[in-house]
Amino acid sequence: MAVKTRTRKKSTRSSGRKARMIYGFAPDRTDGRAHQRELLGGKGANLADMTSIGLPVPPGFTITTETCAAYSKGGNRMPSGLMKEVETHVKRLEKFTGKSFGSKTDPLLVSVRSGAAVSMPGMMDTVLNLGLTDAAVEGLAELTGNERFAWDAYRRLINMFGDVVMDVDHHHFETAFSKIKKKYKVTEDTDVPAAGLRELCTAYKAVYRKHVGKAFPQDPMKQLQHAIEAVFRSWNAPKAISYRKINEITGLQGTAVNVQTMVFGNMGDDSGTGVAFTRDPSTGKNQFYGEFLINAQGEDVVAGIRTPKPVSQMKKWDGKAFASLMKIRTILEKHYRDVQDIEFTIERGHLWMLQTRNGKRTAAAAVKIAVDMVKERLITRDEALLRIPAGDLVQLLLPSYTAASKKGATIVATGLPASPGASWGALAFTAEDAVERATAGEQVLLVRTETSPEDVEGMHHAAGILTSTGGMTSHAAVVARGWGKCCVAGAGAIAIDEKKQRATINGKAYGPKDILSIDGSTGEVMAGRVDGSTPKLSGDFNTIMKWADAARRMKVRTNADSPADSKRARDFGAEGIGLTRTEHMFFEGDRIVAMRRMILADNQKDRVAALKQLLPYQRKDFTGIFTAMKGLPVTVRLLDPPLHEFLPHDRASQKELASAMGVPLKDVVRRVDSLHEANPMLGHRGCRLAVTYPEILRMQVTAIVEAMIACRKKGIKAMPEIMIPLVGTRQELALLREETLETIAEVKKRKKYTGKLDIPVGTMIEIPRAALTADEVAGVADFFSFGTNDLTQLTYGYSRDDINGFLPDYIHRGILEKDPFQSIDVNGVGRLVDIAVREGRMVKPKLKLGVCGEHGGDPASVEFFDHVGLDYVSCSPFRVPTARLAAAQSTIRRKKK
Amino acid sequence: MAVKTRTRKKSTRSSGRKARMIYGFAPDRTDGRAHQRELLGGKGANLADMTSIGLPVPPGFTITTETCAAYSKGGNRMPSGLMKEVETHVKRLEKFTGKSFGSKTDPLLVSVRSGAAVSMPGMMDTVLNLGLTDAAVEGLAELTGNERFAWDAYRRLINMFGDVVMDVDHHHFETAFSKIKKKYKVTEDTDVPAAGLRELCTAYKAVYRKHVGKAFPQDPMKQLQHAIEAVFRSWNAPKAISYRKINEITGLQGTAVNVQTMVFGNMGDDSGTGVAFTRDPSTGKNQFYGEFLINAQGEDVVAGIRTPKPVSQMKKWDGKAFASLMKIRTILEKHYRDVQDIEFTIERGHLWMLQTRNGKRTAAAAVKIAVDMVKERLITRDEALLRIPAGDLVQLLLPSYTAASKKGATIVATGLPASPGASWGALAFTAEDAVERATAGEQVLLVRTETSPEDVEGMHHAAGILTSTGGMTSHAAVVARGWGKCCVAGAGAIAIDEKKQRATINGKAYGPKDILSIDGSTGEVMAGRVDGSTPKLSGDFNTIMKWADAARRMKVRTNADSPADSKRARDFGAEGIGLTRTEHMFFEGDRIVAMRRMILADNQKDRVAALKQLLPYQRKDFTGIFTAMKGLPVTVRLLDPPLHEFLPHDRASQKELASAMGVPLKDVVRRVDSLHEANPMLGHRGCRLAVTYPEILRMQVTAIVEAMIACRKKGIKAMPEIMIPLVGTRQELALLREETLETIAEVKKRKKYTGKLDIPVGTMIEIPRAALTADEVAGVADFFSFGTNDLTQLTYGYSRDDINGFLPDYIHRGILEKDPFQSIDVNGVGRLVDIAVREGRMVKPKLKLGVCGEHGGDPASVEFFDHVGLDYVSCSPFRVPTARLAAAQSTIRRKKK
Repeated sequence: MAVKTRTRKKSTRSSGRKARMIYGFAPDRTDGRAHQRELLGGKGANLADMTSIGLPVPPGFTITTETCAAYSKGGNRMPSGLMKEVETHVKRLEKFTGKSFGSKTDPLLVSVRSGAAVSMPGMMDTVLNLGLTDAAVEGLAELTGNERFAWDAYRRLINMFGDVVMDVDHHHFETAFSKIKKKYKVTEDTDVPAAGLRELCTAYKAVYRKHVGKAFPQDPMKQLQHAIEAVFRSWNAPKAISYRKINEITGLQGTAVNVQTMVFGNMGDDSGTGVAFTRDPSTGKNQFYGEFLINAQGEDVVAGIRTPKPVSQMKKWDGKAFASLMKIRTILEKHYRDVQDIEFTIERGHLWMLQTRNGKRTAAAAVKIAVDMVKERLITRDEALLRIPAGDLVQLLLPSYTAASKKGATIVATGLPASPGASWGALAFTAEDAVERATAGEQVLLVRTETSPEDVEGMHHAAGILTSTGGMTSHAAVVARGWGKCCVAGAGAIAIDEKKQRATINGKAYGPKDILSIDGSTGEVMAGRVDGSTPKLSGDFNTIMKWADAARRMKVRTNADSPADSKRARDFGAEGIGLTRTEHMFFEGDRIVAMRRMILADNQKDRVAALKQLLPYQRKDFTGIFTAMKGLPVTVRLLDPPLHEFLPHDRASQKELASAMGVPLKDVVRRVDSLHEANPMLGHRGCRLAVTYPEILRMQVTAIVEAMIACRKKGIKAMPEIMIPLVGTRQELALLREETLETIAEVKKRKKYTGKLDIPVGTMIEIPRAALTADEVAGVADFFSFGTNDLTQLTYGYSRDDINGFLPDYIHRGILEKDPFQSIDVNGVGRLVDIAVREGRMVKPKLKLGVCGEHGGDPASVEFFDHVGLDYVSCSPFRVPTARLAAAQSTIRRKKK
Repeated sequence: MAVKTRTRKKSTRSSGRKARMIYGFAPDRTDGRAHQRELLGGKGANLADMTSIGLPVPPGFTITTETCAAYSKGGNRMPSGLMKEVETHVKRLEKFTGKSFGSKTDPLLVSVRSGAAVSMPGMMDTVLNLGLTDAAVEGLAELTGNERFAWDAYRRLINMFGDVVMDVDHHHFETAFSKIKKKYKVTEDTDVPAAGLRELCTAYKAVYRKHVGKAFPQDPMKQLQHAIEAVFRSWNAPKAISYRKINEITGLQGTAVNVQTMVFGNMGDDSGTGVAFTRDPSTGKNQFYGEFLINAQGEDVVAGIRTPKPVSQMKKWDGKAFASLMKIRTILEKHYRDVQDIEFTIERGHLWMLQTRNGKRTAAAAVKIAVDMVKERLITRDEALLRIPAGDLVQLLLPSYTAASKKGATIVATGLPASPGASWGALAFTAEDAVERATAGEQVLLVRTETSPEDVEGMHHAAGILTSTGGMTSHAAVVARGWGKCCVAGAGAIAIDEKKQRATINGKAYGPKDILSIDGSTGEVMAGRVDGSTPKLSGDFNTIMKWADAARRMKVRTNADSPADSKRARDFGAEGIGLTRTEHMFFEGDRIVAMRRMILADNQKDRVAALKQLLPYQRKDFTGIFTAMKGLPVTVRLLDPPLHEFLPHDRASQKELASAMGVPLKDVVRRVDSLHEANPMLGHRGCRLAVTYPEILRMQVTAIVEAMIACRKKGIKAMPEIMIPLVGTRQELALLREETLETIAEVKKRKKYTGKLDIPVGTMIEIPRAALTADEVAGVADFFSFGTNDLTQLTYGYSRDDINGFLPDYIHRGILEKDPFQSIDVNGVGRLVDIAVREGRMVKPKLKLGVCGEHGGDPASVEFFDHVGLDYVSCSPFRVPTARLAAAQSTIRRKKK
């Protein structure tokens, strides 16, 4: 967030020579350079750069940020000599374009824009068509043969100039416009004829005079001076100052002012305008790609009123301009060494480049372009890897909707894009229903207000998951992402009535027979069945992954709770499991009964008996996972959630449970009540459970060791690691580690196993205190795995389940740049990670370090983890390729520094 | 927790001379010194010290910890020459006492005890009466003329020796004893006659032979050798190793072994035993104080079977012994420069000192003794200040029960001593009932399952508060302590039925007419009315406080929410208010209606209107507090709790509210539901409220500024400081600070106030992230006030409301030494405080720093805060004297270093 730009003294200053206030850009001479952002602002530096590589950019000039500073320092007075220099540069523009300022025949028009070194809202935006006067507008009309165009340009100038330069309230102009529209009996601006616009200009000038107290200036140089001063003043507008303060933008001098010749693509049939990409941004194919419109302005292409033609047809229309464009295409790719997205205008046969920037592209295109450009020797392998947005790789692995496939679909609601993908199904309102119908062969969409661990089996069977509450890190979102299952969460417009099996959206009810489709990449919910497509992985994808693996330092593991997920992740390149949650395992079939019996037991003996029933299930789970991951480490996290999550909370299910257990209902109710917590997130869970109920730990460790021995006896190299969650003090881990090691030894002895059982015992670092006392904790840990989800919750004091109450306001008011659960907060949470890494390794230099929170699949976070020196990141299976690439990118960037 | 003792090489070793293995202590020669704890263990060093200052300590010797280390290192083999040295020392004992080992006429008996440098469970405890054999027991019987005593001593030896030295399971001895008791038809051990005990010895020896495989050793030197080895071995017992590991006790060599002559006070009418204090531990009066029993053992005094006589009567019985004792009294106070608590035994006319230690005393006695000893020039003022347990001062300020006042009272339940004091009242089950009946003149005790902010008015009117759930930092506890009101929390044995107005304890029901009494210092709940007493503050107390104020560096403020509390705290010496919570202010009378209207408003306009109604109340509150604290700073915290705390949660009250507001019930229900949070502690509260509802902040700041201006106009120096709670990022504070400053400027302008309004705007540091990014936050803060309650919750991930689910197990299993909400966790939470202090001051060297959590009144925490350099601590009014003294103690200790 913090942008600190050092202020360098200009050498011209210290040498006593007067600093240059204006840098011109024109094909014949460009004063500025791409690196002079500080002095010329971002926009000014870019215009200079484009011009200097020979692009035909409409000429203009940039007044430096230093000049702005001088203006402010001088008490908002124009620095002496500035306007004289401006005049010189305007003269150059006139000479170059052959037009002249205020001319009745061929008037020079310019745009005036602000532009600081850092993009910043709150400053003056743009004045277009500056230079038009009562006289010049006639000239423009004659020149273009388009009276309406000329008067429209003029009325826009008066409005914009009055509004942004002279602070005339916009609604005064609106009122005047309404009157004219009424008079001509039209409702749309575009339907007002030329005569009406001419009248409007007269009315606007009256508005201007009334509120400014002076007539609209008929001297273009006066217009320009006012506009420049307005830009200067806007640097110190309260909104701009406040923005800089809140965002810690310091060390900047001021804003630059960019004055640039206007060009028009609507000056007749020898004019036109277009947008293009130097390669196909959708497939990555190396062919010129774009559209153009004859006798039109840029906004016409965007507005979609007229249908543009493919750029390939331009050759027929204006072979010369097309040849120039193709030449420019080559220059651009050579200069920027990447695909460019360009805007151009042809004014009376003359091609002008208005903008070039790196082209956005699909993930598939990014991969192809990167590999191709290496083959073309345009870029190196390292550069190719850096070019691909690692986060986008998920798109290549999951079914998705394209604009084409969604065409005609009705979007009925929008939620959060919680887990990417595309899917549809008939609505199921309970997990049980979803399981039943899916097992019977129906494709169902599980629709819930929010999901809980009880719903996991239903979620697994559903084709997709849709919830009406909950955020990006809600239960539904986290579980779905783990499986690569499509999920839209928090679609607030949907009212779900589970009992009546009904979802109501905007007054329309959808029942179990209705089908909805969801786009997990956009959050859109569509009526009816919309089919997506599953892309095939290209050879280029494999090439990129191979290069990435060769480049990266960090290992990439996966979070997986089942053999199927483990296998898939392995296929995606996972080098082990960083997190196997054991809680999901207790919900299936009979297990939940034994689990509940254990929780309801009021003495250790009964608990041990119930746990004995769970043991064979757990052993089987682990055997499956160890087998799928043979030869690779598997980190098993012991039971983490509070016990009440395993008990039913509605009276009916409690009754059922009571009769199944043969205990009075009131005992069940009492236990549920006694387990109720004001803040379960901060309650009796994680290793705190193992401290109070050591028998749970013993059962789980026994299952792990027995599964390991069973695998080893079959020649399968099982490599479990035992992870104790929610540790906050060394003493907790010391105690539980002892109990774990004792249990391992016991099982080994009982099973008469004589081989070596090397099972590392470590902990999650997810409690701030554990990070702060890592030097103590490390003494009794074989590894640390950062649980950055909970660490973020505690470091910020944000409950993931409740953050939606204020997060939107926080993002909106600029307090948070992004959701800290998506991308790691380097300064706060990251600092704790850094402390734990450094101080843990101080005590135990070979301490193995990883991360298993949601952040393990976020490229920016992966880079941070690489920097602090973790050994691995672990993420959901579908994000494994992303993590592999992000890890490589980080290594490459570090190497470059 | 961590005890790290550096291992120093003995100079005797490095010089090549053989290290001395045994240090003797006897009146004629003492080898050891008080400072040699590492070598002699704690117990051994103390015995040496007492002996060396001329106390008649039963002579003995200590085998060094180094010898233990040599034993372990040598594979559990006695170091060569050790037993020879032991023999030499035993000879010295025989010579000195005139008794001899195994003698048939006057046997020397010894005790053998372990004793490391640090007290440590898990090691061998004690063997008494060692030296008794079949022969010696007869000698002892003859010598004492008490056959029963002799055989009882012998059977105890065989049992203890078998059990702790030879690992014979204790129950084998029990079985044998049961048989004897059956035979003699008695149930108590003490009723078995001498003959029975003689038979028992035979039976015990058989048990011993059976399980050890050898006869019970009849050679005292063999007994001694075995016992010494057992002590050595116990150093490496699994329990001892595990204890050291978990508690990070490293660097110790081993345990010492203390062998000491046994003395007996029950050898006839010229023998006796007693306990005494060198001054009255209850009042502090400078007079000898204690009790003694003729012909008795120490345990008889403790057991209370016989009634001892006051020590003053000893002169008549044995003038010589008494004179010695009085001489020793003087020696002791001169040597230890403090009141001593001593145990002594007179064996056949000879006085032996068994123990001396600093005497425990009441707070009143501590104050008097400290002041007296300064007058007597025994100690300095600094030492006097250090002598008084700062936390005990609260006892002097509040009504309390004495053993006398509670005599005969029936304790019906015990809860947590949540807020000290003594009170009784007829039971009130709702806050409304408490207010009504108290207003009518009845003395009531508010009895609730737990309290919430809605109960505050009732709590205020009640004489005391009793809850059945909640811990030491529950709402009831925190509020009560703030007021100095007596409170017992979490008395789980009480089942409260609010509807039926009934509290059931152990099957007995108590209604609104029944009276209970509570002791807030012990947690006891008593049936009926028990009156306590309110002590008057002594002149000595004022002297101590004056000395403390002169000595301390840190300021002491108070947490107070009303003018009455402010005034009281000022009387107790508070130098300002560190925390005024504003939420309590919204519950009284009409205010809650306006508050609820504000919360139920669904647009900003209605919210602003409701807030307008609240403004005059807030202004009045602040005017009162500023007036009470004139000339001193008052830190006002803006609204902190989540809004749902202000809404009723039961349907009946919701209905009432709906009709009062003229809105449908479902709107109220919907709003309550929409405000529900899974983890309210981590939810929409604190400054997050001000971000989403800036109008609340504006109302509060307006009230503060208007109150300030009103005060100033009356010549009252109001000094408010505005504190923004729950800040986690710089951006939050930057934004809200701007809004605060704007509001201040607006009010100033509107009120046409021309004076200077210097209102510091700062933040609580209670979110870990705020501490970790203190350098960023400090840039926009005038002060930091550490909210260590929430900081502890988040750093540990413990919910104060839910911690009772596991805290008892945590304390029991040694994971936590103490409740981190009572005393600051230096390594974790403290580290965050330290980081924030250092990095905040790096950016802003004059940043004002304080603490306003519960820890501000805890002496250990106050010391920590002094060390890290805070400017002040703030605590509840009754803890202000404690904090003043603790701050002085910290400064003095630091100076000494």
